Amino acid sequence: MRPSGRDLSEMRSVSIETGVTKHAEGSCLIKVGDTHVICTASLEPRVPPFIKGSGLGWVTAEYGMLPRSTGSRMRREATSGKQGGRTVEIQRLIGRSLRAGVDRVALGERQITVDCDVLQADGGTRCAAITGGWVALRLAVNKLMKAGDVVSDPLVSPVAAVSCGIYAGQPVLDLDYAEDSEAGVDGNFILRGDGQLIEVQMSAEGATFSRDQMTNLMDLAEAGTAELVAAQKAAVA
Amino acid sequence: MRPSGRDLSEMRSVSIETGVTKHAEGSCLIKVGDTHVICTASLEPRVPPFIKGSGLGWVTAEYGMLPRSTGSRMRREATSGKQGGRTVEIQRLIGRSLRAGVDRVALGERQITVDCDVLQADGGTRCAAITGGWVALRLAVNKLMKAGDVVSDPLVSPVAAVSCGIYAGQPVLDLDYAEDSEAGVDGNFILRGDGQLIEVQMSAEGATFSRDQMTNLMDLAEAGTAELVAAQKAAVA
Amino acid sequence: MRPSGRDLSEMRSVSIETGVTKHAEGSCLIKVGDTHVICTASLEPRVPPFIKGSGLGWVTAEYGMLPRSTGSRMRREATSGKQGGRTVEIQRLIGRSLRAGVDRVALGERQITVDCDVLQADGGTRCAAITGGWVALRLAVNKLMKAGDVVSDPLVSPVAAVSCGIYAGQPVLDLDYAEDSEAGVDGNFILRGDGQLIEVQMSAEGATFSRDQMTNLMDLAEAGTAELVAAQKAAVA
Amino acid sequence: MRPSGRDLSEMRSVSIETGVTKHAEGSCLIKVGDTHVICTASLEPRVPPFIKGSGLGWVTAEYGMLPRSTGSRMRREATSGKQGGRTVEIQRLIGRSLRAGVDRVALGERQITVDCDVLQADGGTRCAAITGGWVALRLAVNKLMKAGDVVSDPLVSPVAAVSCGIYAGQPVLDLDYAEDSEAGVDGNFILRGDGQLIEVQMSAEGATFSRDQMTNLMDLAEAGTAELVAAQKAAVA
Amino acid sequence: MRPSGRDLSEMRSVSIETGVTKHAEGSCLIKVGDTHVICTASLEPRVPPFIKGSGLGWVTAEYGMLPRSTGSRMRREATSGKQGGRTVEIQRLIGRSLRAGVDRVALGERQITVDCDVLQADGGTRCAAITGGWVALRLAVNKLMKAGDVVSDPLVSPVAAVSCGIYAGQPVLDLDYAEDSEAGVDGNFILRGDGQLIEVQMSAEGATFSRDQMTNLMDLAEAGTAELVAAQKAAVA
Amino acid sequence: MRPSGRDLSEMRSVSIETGVTKHAEGSCLIKVGDTHVICTASLEPRVPPFIKGSGLGWVTAEYGMLPRSTGSRMRREATSGKQGGRTVEIQRLIGRSLRAGVDRVALGERQITVDCDVLQADGGTRCAAITGGWVALRLAVNKLMKAGDVVSDPLVSPVAAVSCGIYAGQPVLDLDYAEDSEAGVDGNFILRGDGQLIEVQMSAEGATFSRDQMTNLMDLAEAGTAELVAAQKAAVA
Repeated sequence: MRPSGRDLSEMRSVSIETGVTKHAEGSCLIKVGDTHVICTASLEPRVPPFIKGSGLGWVTAEYGMLPRSTGSRMRREATSGKQGGRTVEIQRLIGRSLRAGVDRVALGERQITVDCDVLQADGGTRCAAITGGWVALRLAVNKLMKAGDVVSDPLVSPVAAVSCGIYAGQPVLDLDYAEDSEAGVDGNFILRGDGQLIEVQMSAEGATFSRDQMTNLMDLAEAGTAELVAAQKAAVA
Repeated sequence: MRPSGRDLSEMRSVSIETGVTKHAEGSCLIKVGDTHVICTASLEPRVPPFIKGSGLGWVTAEYGMLPRSTGSRMRREATSGKQGGRTVEIQRLIGRSLRAGVDRVALGERQITVDCDVLQADGGTRCAAITGGWVALRLAVNKLMKAGDVVSDPLVSPVAAVSCGIYAGQPVLDLDYAEDSEAGVDGNFILRGDGQLIEVQMSAEGATFSRDQMTNLMDLAEAGTAELVAAQKAAVA
Repeated sequence: MRPSGRDLSEMRSVSIETGVTKHAEGSCLIKVGDTHVICTASLEPRVPPFIKGSGLGWVTAEYGMLPRSTGSRMRREATSGKQGGRTVEIQRLIGRSLRAGVDRVALGERQITVDCDVLQADGGTRCAAITGGWVALRLAVNKLMKAGDVVSDPLVSPVAAVSCGIYAGQPVLDLDYAEDSEAGVDGNFILRGDGQLIEVQMSAEGATFSRDQMTNLMDLAEAGTAELVAAQKAAVA
Repeated sequence: MRPSGRDLSEMRSVSIETGVTKHAEGSCLIKVGDTHVICTASLEPRVPPFIKGSGLGWVTAEYGMLPRSTGSRMRREATSGKQGGRTVEIQRLIGRSLRAGVDRVALGERQITVDCDVLQADGGTRCAAITGGWVALRLAVNKLMKAGDVVSDPLVSPVAAVSCGIYAGQPVLDLDYAEDSEAGVDGNFILRGDGQLIEVQMSAEGATFSRDQMTNLMDLAEAGTAELVAAQKAAVA
Repeated sequence: MRPSGRDLSEMRSVSIETGVTKHAEGSCLIKVGDTHVICTASLEPRVPPFIKGSGLGWVTAEYGMLPRSTGSRMRREATSGKQGGRTVEIQRLIGRSLRAGVDRVALGERQITVDCDVLQADGGTRCAAITGGWVALRLAVNKLMKAGDVVSDPLVSPVAAVSCGIYAGQPVLDLDYAEDSEAGVDGNFILRGDGQLIEVQMSAEGATFSRDQMTNLMDLAEAGTAELVAAQKAAVA
Repeated sequence: MRPSGRDLSEMRSVSIETGVTKHAEGSCLIKVGDTHVICTASLEPRVPPFIKGSGLGWVTAEYGMLPRSTGSRMRREATSGKQGGRTVEIQRLIGRSLRAGVDRVALGERQITVDCDVLQADGGTRCAAITGGWVALRLAVNKLMKAGDVVSDPLVSPVAAVSCGIYAGQPVLDLDYAEDSEAGVDGNFILRGDGQLIEVQMSAEGATFSRDQMTNLMDLAEAGTAELVAAQKAAVA
């Protein structure tokens, strides 16, 4: 029934390659099916003004898409003079989600910026960005710990994200572009490796959904993120 | 336990005054406790390019806050040269939510823009904006129907929104600012009058929540939005 | 002869309601006929760089219109990326006018920002903003004096503004929108309660006026502002 | 008493050199004392949307200052990303003033843009811009009439502008920078060659003025603009 | 003598992998040493206004760097609201250079946009972008020719670019970052496969160079670009 | 063969008038044929952050064109919200070129900003700007030396620039607009008075050039800049 022939509860294949750029403190290229995102974690000297002197750390994120990561070329945001609403929403989500897995006291007063740039898009780019972003963050934190700059591990639990939606009347896991563009209801679930929820975003465009469907979607998300966490752990091992 | 002395499942008092500006096709001033939002619905000649010639209508929304609607004065977005990420997120949410209650074929090829401007803020402004925005929309559509421009009612069901969160370890309904600024987990539920879900946004900042808590929050939201729909119906009667 | 049936020298009815928002140090809703403006005065911690250390205070103003305050919806300035030329002109005028009634030594090194937001427009919004803005300023200063932060009253005299113009060949007082859109010559007079002039702006668009007409317009303005000052005094009593 | 040694009612010396650039349809370099402004009038193919098909013409203006036209270097507006509030106010004033001397029916459906760029500033740049701008406009219209594109002269009467103010307690004519930076009250008067008033702008910064003073200032302005109109006529003869 | 141990006239190793993204009509990942650039060629429906109806084609280019392509994280241009001067210079150069190898009549009235995004930077990114950009362009044109949309080959000759400079007093070929940041004189040479020059940019920062050195640098550039053209031909074979 | 009737190696007539504005520390109006550029050098208190405390000086430049400096009116960059790519390229070039003639140690920790504003354009404005900019710089430095603020002359050698190109198949010197708009190959050469090269920019648009032509163009440039240096020396004598 799904365009890709996958089962309703079947994820796309996931691969995570680490160390893909020589400059970043942590980096990976995550591929979830044909969605490819390069994630880097940069240790930055500047701290946001609101935490100066607090002893607390900060993790933030930025998101972008290469102009031809998509089926037809998109306008480059740098030329249009600002980041679009969708971009701003996504990068706020990535940062918020990653912070939910961070002990900011243990991190200490420093900032890590996670950049997620989509090389090729086929649906679910923000979820891939969060899942890959955590891997980059993990590697950068490892470097800090190895150097003795951070003593107690500030990463409480892995953070992973998956999309779900209602496609052709059926709740499905991990929508690709063909499904995403047809689904009237879809959203993202962000969970930690310990099963705690970080963010639930289920949204309808010109449609609605019942509470039973919501329950069903949450079941799918729990299974999907468990699979992603396993891939994260393997990648950073 | 709540700063306001309310029960865990108790909404603030709600009032909706209609016809508050002489120019708009529909308007109301909604007060949810000390949160006051003026909502207007404007029938606009221009239609977005992507629906030209489709015969379908469009409902969109914009959101703003007066600089001193808040405890300390905020910078006016018009002077900072752009709408902030929070504003863009909110107005996309309002438009998407209202459209979930609209039959765009019945509306016909015309646009209605709903403006929601916060005069005084005390938490939950986006939910008040959606709830009041629907009232303004209802009144504007009534005018179209009275004039015979629209024959079949394009408003399928009322749309209402309420915030919920975990405050001091307890799921609570309709957070005010005092609660909102303390809650590590909060979000918004948008439902239709027929009980269908439109949007679920539950989000943690530096915290997480369990699946049981999620269930509890959804129960609160269903009760709260039912109360709001009753107020909407009374206002437009 | 006037669309509203008013005499040439007749003001619209004026009402000023104070204390309309719980957050601002001073606030009012001024209604001059169908022109409704909400004015707030905010005591701000930041002082402009050019007066730091001078011991002098500063009063500044910002102005905005809700998108549907007008007959047809206007574009929101926050979405167009900047304040238009008209807005900038108006808010500079409001600030300059209010400062002409302020003893900046007595105020001490602090800033008060007066925000004037038009809820409904029917001509003369900038004059209503100045007149209402002074009331908000008065209330905020009262609070400072009550708290003992300011000892000697920094408000020398009330500041009020009225528009005049030549409509259908006749000098008229307090133009409403129907008149304003027809008048080839119009402008604004800002006076203090003691009769001193602060600003005279008389301007022709595709027309001119004689020196005799100018004299006539000034007579009207003196009478009109006296009436407004009486309303201000009643409101803050 | 005046820093320059001039009498209270004495203008600075005025010179107007025409034909200073080979490309513009009309141009001049006006010098009012040490204030030097280059004015060009450009016949433009585009007409503003609101007059398309009306048969009416349009005259508009833009204003700029070279970065080192002033005592200390100003930031170039092109690098700060927008024209400042002062610039916008001035160029709106120039355009409005020039249009008051134009018969837009006789001009026919075409636009003339008058650019006024200050090479050296010593007070009164906007007045010099209007006075010189009219000369450039006159020359461009002459060209149109010579070519037979315009038959009846659209320029009704010359337009000239002068500043006045209260310096050291005395009303004075044509303020230079040394006076302008000290005067608490100053403004601009724009008149036609036939003595009709176009614009009166008298404004106080931290000061006020009496009605008698206003009368006195208007007397000065009438004399000053008469002198400027004579210089304009000589320049275009 | 060179930090990398290379000879004065020795290029870094070059690899060009084609077909790296499924959406673009042509694409490659070019690696010149540690400088990695992803280049895509997109066939676009829109043509610039100035060639509409001319029958001529257009090739244009855009350039970007991922924020952490560099040693320390750069600000994302989309967040700073505009492309920096360096970016604009580079993308104009890429487009101009590629067009010098294109027969715009043979291409026909269509636009190809070449996007060059730097994944990892180690000096010479603009040269790698031109060299890789030509490969992407070649592949996209091949597709057009295969489809019969273009009959006669519009690509006259390959276009390749290399940097040269004076490092430690010696003319050297293909500067890496360590050299580039020390060189007082450096620049770029863009040549076609047939040896014709397209662009010579030799520029000194706080230094100068003699005409003899200029001759020497041109010799190096001719050899270097010949090597790059061989790699281009192998990649597209 | 040239539209102007000049020989292939013949410059246009050059005049340099100094002291054209009373405010700037150094200024001139340079005329190269019908290209007229006003250049001012401003001694500025602020130093760029990257040299603070280094003891080194800085010379930077900005460039602009009056809207009607050209055959048809150009949009003012201040109204379009940013400097175009061409402007940014040019002003970076001017600054870089002038710095190549400056001993930044001898200048000491201060900044000189050279503004080059084109009053009338007829090709070669950037070259005229560099040549005239050096004269303004020389005069400002003279003032510093006279005042004893700078002891050893920081200006090592004059800096002059000339354009060359291939017009109608022939290398020609100092292109005017009629030639520039036809030439497929053109560029700029910036040299010092001692014959050292600072910048070579030769660029083809839809064309190419041979190495022999390159040699020929360099010969022309050497002769042309020698002539300009003589004019500079005469002007500042």
